[in-house]
Amino acid sequence: MDDFPPPPVDKAALEEGDAFSPRFDRDGLVTAIVTDAGDGELLMVAHMNAEALALTLETGLAHFWSRSRGTLWKKGETSGNMLRVAEMKTDCDQDAVWLKVVVGGHDATCHTGRRSCFYRTVKVRDGKATLAQDGSRAKFDPAEIYGNGH
Amino acid sequence: MDDFPPPPVDKAALEEGDAFSPRFDRDGLVTAIVTDAGDGELLMVAHMNAEALALTLETGLAHFWSRSRGTLWKKGETSGNMLRVAEMKTDCDQDAVWLKVVVGGHDATCHTGRRSCFYRTVKVRDGKATLAQDGSRAKFDPAEIYGNGH
Repeated sequence: MDDFPPPPVDKAALEEGDAFSPRFDRDGLVTAIVTDAGDGELLMVAHMNAEALALTLETGLAHFWSRSRGTLWKKGETSGNMLRVAEMKTDCDQDAVWLKVVVGGHDATCHTGRRSCFYRTVKVRDGKATLAQDGSRAKFDPAEIYGNGH
Repeated sequence: MDDFPPPPVDKAALEEGDAFSPRFDRDGLVTAIVTDAGDGELLMVAHMNAEALALTLETGLAHFWSRSRGTLWKKGETSGNMLRVAEMKTDCDQDAVWLKVVVGGHDATCHTGRRSCFYRTVKVRDGKATLAQDGSRAKFDPAEIYGNGH
């Protein structure tokens, strides 16, 4: 299924048509936004190449392309925290997909063990941006699940 | 404020520290996810360079970098649909920011006039992925706001 059609040159066709023609960037990737199908919480942001996108559509389980490891990445394969896709949408110019998912296992998506990767708030104090933890706690022990140096 | 510190080499400092050190990609951009501060709906995905990020923090209004136009982009400058940032968060490896916003004007974020850029669902039928409109209607007339060829 990974032979997605090339994006149409016609803007109206790209934005209003019914052909799914993802606009992969020069690295062959689209941005994938993952939210919880239950309460809508933003869980993570990752990237997909054509193979990851096709596997996600075929299996109903989220697959990504790991830019840091340079490999296909079946999310949750190690931790058990797989993401079952309840719905997938794309945006106006088809360079991003939005996955609404049901999280398996520990109900945690971040490799730090937390539910969401977005656990720090950006605050401006004295004209300087700093981060404040939002209090999210790890739901599993990364050292135990991934071993050292995860 | 756009002299953000370089990301620390130490992974624990990057992931658990209180220094905001965005990991800009080779184009100098981070991914920005925009959701509605009220109901959490995913509205749009865009990109920010250091200047856009700094202006967003300084003014409380979302600024982006337009990759298609190659310019700084104060969202809503033409349409009036500015995005007031209620909260900004960043993710574990600091290459994405999440803006929870209050949308001004027409309560529409997409340039097609719709509330959200994500108005089409990806469906698999007979082993082929196609798009289905989700029924979202335009809240303003793009031709009127942007002129032709927006």
